[in-house]
Amino acid sequence: MIMSYGKIFSILKKNDLSNWNFYTKHDFVTKLTNNTLDKKIFLNYLIQDYLFLIQFSKAWSLAIIKSDILDEMKIAANTVNGLINFEMDLHINLCGSYGISKIDLENANEENENIAYTRFVLEAGYSGDLLDLMAALIPCVFGYGEIGVNNSNARPETYMYQKWLNTYSSHEYQQICHEVAKLFDNAIYLRLGENYINSYKWNNIKKIFRRAVLLEVDFWNMAMRLDK
Amino acid sequence: MIMSYGKIFSILKKNDLSNWNFYTKHDFVTKLTNNTLDKKIFLNYLIQDYLFLIQFSKAWSLAIIKSDILDEMKIAANTVNGLINFEMDLHINLCGSYGISKIDLENANEENENIAYTRFVLEAGYSGDLLDLMAALIPCVFGYGEIGVNNSNARPETYMYQKWLNTYSSHEYQQICHEVAKLFDNAIYLRLGENYINSYKWNNIKKIFRRAVLLEVDFWNMAMRLDK
Amino acid sequence: MIMSYGKIFSILKKNDLSNWNFYTKHDFVTKLTNNTLDKKIFLNYLIQDYLFLIQFSKAWSLAIIKSDILDEMKIAANTVNGLINFEMDLHINLCGSYGISKIDLENANEENENIAYTRFVLEAGYSGDLLDLMAALIPCVFGYGEIGVNNSNARPETYMYQKWLNTYSSHEYQQICHEVAKLFDNAIYLRLGENYINSYKWNNIKKIFRRAVLLEVDFWNMAMRLDK
Amino acid sequence: MIMSYGKIFSILKKNDLSNWNFYTKHDFVTKLTNNTLDKKIFLNYLIQDYLFLIQFSKAWSLAIIKSDILDEMKIAANTVNGLINFEMDLHINLCGSYGISKIDLENANEENENIAYTRFVLEAGYSGDLLDLMAALIPCVFGYGEIGVNNSNARPETYMYQKWLNTYSSHEYQQICHEVAKLFDNAIYLRLGENYINSYKWNNIKKIFRRAVLLEVDFWNMAMRLDK
Repeated sequence: MIMSYGKIFSILKKNDLSNWNFYTKHDFVTKLTNNTLDKKIFLNYLIQDYLFLIQFSKAWSLAIIKSDILDEMKIAANTVNGLINFEMDLHINLCGSYGISKIDLENANEENENIAYTRFVLEAGYSGDLLDLMAALIPCVFGYGEIGVNNSNARPETYMYQKWLNTYSSHEYQQICHEVAKLFDNAIYLRLGENYINSYKWNNIKKIFRRAVLLEVDFWNMAMRLDK
Repeated sequence: MIMSYGKIFSILKKNDLSNWNFYTKHDFVTKLTNNTLDKKIFLNYLIQDYLFLIQFSKAWSLAIIKSDILDEMKIAANTVNGLINFEMDLHINLCGSYGISKIDLENANEENENIAYTRFVLEAGYSGDLLDLMAALIPCVFGYGEIGVNNSNARPETYMYQKWLNTYSSHEYQQICHEVAKLFDNAIYLRLGENYINSYKWNNIKKIFRRAVLLEVDFWNMAMRLDK
Repeated sequence: MIMSYGKIFSILKKNDLSNWNFYTKHDFVTKLTNNTLDKKIFLNYLIQDYLFLIQFSKAWSLAIIKSDILDEMKIAANTVNGLINFEMDLHINLCGSYGISKIDLENANEENENIAYTRFVLEAGYSGDLLDLMAALIPCVFGYGEIGVNNSNARPETYMYQKWLNTYSSHEYQQICHEVAKLFDNAIYLRLGENYINSYKWNNIKKIFRRAVLLEVDFWNMAMRLDK
Repeated sequence: MIMSYGKIFSILKKNDLSNWNFYTKHDFVTKLTNNTLDKKIFLNYLIQDYLFLIQFSKAWSLAIIKSDILDEMKIAANTVNGLINFEMDLHINLCGSYGISKIDLENANEENENIAYTRFVLEAGYSGDLLDLMAALIPCVFGYGEIGVNNSNARPETYMYQKWLNTYSSHEYQQICHEVAKLFDNAIYLRLGENYINSYKWNNIKKIFRRAVLLEVDFWNMAMRLDK
């Protein structure tokens, strides 16, 4: 299976490959796939990820607002819909089956590293334009997409680990990734043209992408710390 | 059929009844229902309304961001989805059947009165909170809902007039109104409590609602002017 | 005295010259300079302009946020400071000397055309970037600058007309215009390069500029209507 | 000298006293006052703080926009002016005297913990109202004010440590604190009334305040780590 989440992402990723690999092949992921991850760590991660998804859905809603054309709006709206009406419920159900109620989720303490990433993305959207926002959003979307594909042959015994991997390797999730890749590539070409690499904007896009990847790394680091 | 779009709206409406009636029983509506409306006027209105819907969808996307709880986010997200993936296409198709292409729609000149209302709503959302935004959104949602119900027995000969009326009297549209009414009522009670009428906020909500109604009136006035 | 508010503005103005002239040589201005303007009309205009300035200061505050470099932030911050700590007080004092109190000003009804322009500018700033925002701000800044210079020899007998003209022909105001011109030109060159005219962005800048000019025209039209 | 930065802050502080003390009496502060702080750590902190101030000025610009009345706008505008036209230059000069150029400052790498706090504040302002924003801003304003007063008798030998302490214990800085305290208290009373503690909003204000304090702690932790 060949991953290809678009031209622009492949350039950004190559440009920051060691950070990207550190993020997508983080200890958390390795331990999850070989079933050595502490379950408490995973459950705490799930709780943080629920709080993350709420803010992430809001950031995708900003993408609708920052769109210039209807086709952009539609892809962003579909992503919002998928996040709010499907992924959120999956998290609630998965947590529920491990004794973490919806109320527990809502009242959970949002960790600093979680806040760091989501507020960075939201602020990039509020202060910037669709390209700034997308550069901050895609490390999450495509990173999880790669983790899913990279580990599609992993068979961790723990049910929730397998289920989590299945989610991101699923055809449905990969389809979202491809839609988002198309949105991002087209959004860049529309606004910056074929010669985008020489535009003023490109430099900022690289900077935002790199920062978002580092904030994802900190998110995993946080998850590994929360073992109480 | 009894219209009831929630407690809060009924108070706001009663508070501005003459403006409200001027808006929902505007000449444009009367002429449309008795089939005396100039078709050019209606088609020009449809074009402006398409441009309006794009901004209105963005305003509803802001409602997702300004929500405090998941239930609020879900209703707002469903409305965005309905607007972008259904109503927009209805407009494109209806216009298409009268020789107005999608490209015509996208390149049409957004009139000042159209801009006035949509930017007012969006700015209320950006600068304010969910209640400010809702107060600006509901005159459109519920006004069209009332127009649909008020004129559900009208039988204008012109196909597009009948189709337009059917859209807003339809069960589907009325359901959206009821969802939005629930969202608005609950959002007020959650934030301002039962005694909301004595809160500082309430005064601002009334002011925004009143202004949005007046901007809707100007929208009809604009439509009546565009007969070239 | 030669007016020159920068390269970019001169291109945008030439591109929309008839609208620009209609705005800067509007009946309101002609009547004010030859002293035939109804005083009630002027006082109502002053009240609307006070409400306008509050929103306009907020839009300039957004320019600070949307700046990329410290030099941009400084010019925007100086403009905010000038508006809030000087122009606002001038309006309050001028109105006060004609029996309109600060409370009258604050409680005045913001007209639809007033809302249309200010919310358009603010929304351009929230949804767009510094260039979108500047394109919406400069028609006001430079239009009033030109009106001041164009009519610097006018000697209307009515004190408040002369005072109003003096404000905009003053060295202080013209200095602000030149600062803003520098900010706008540099902001364009920094982001779009020398070849900005062929960028995707340029088209949007022209569109926003044109719309802001038309909304300024509507502002004068509104003023002429408010003679009660 | 008695510190009193307003009623509301004193309640919020008491409510989170251990975190507050951990922040305002952090190792970084203690070592600075007794002159045992590594100079490299301080210089790296200054660089991060310069990047912080740029975002913080933007957050205060948002406070102008989110204000409801002219008096609120004026205090926020004065703070923006103080930050952009004075504090920023102080940082540039202080850094300059230690061989860190303005260009070094601008090109410095913004650390994750720095981003975490500034984006949290900005997002609170964009998504929320003036009270949300103020709750995120004041831990920085008043925390540094307290550090200044608490250590006004300290006499660290290192020139830049003494200069730094002097800045925050200065009459000018303390005046800003008192202005901001008045702004915050009045903003709360205006919007939530005397019985604010029982409002829905109050809970959110406490949550934002607490989080901002924790993000300040992380900022010091980051500073202590940057000793390369």
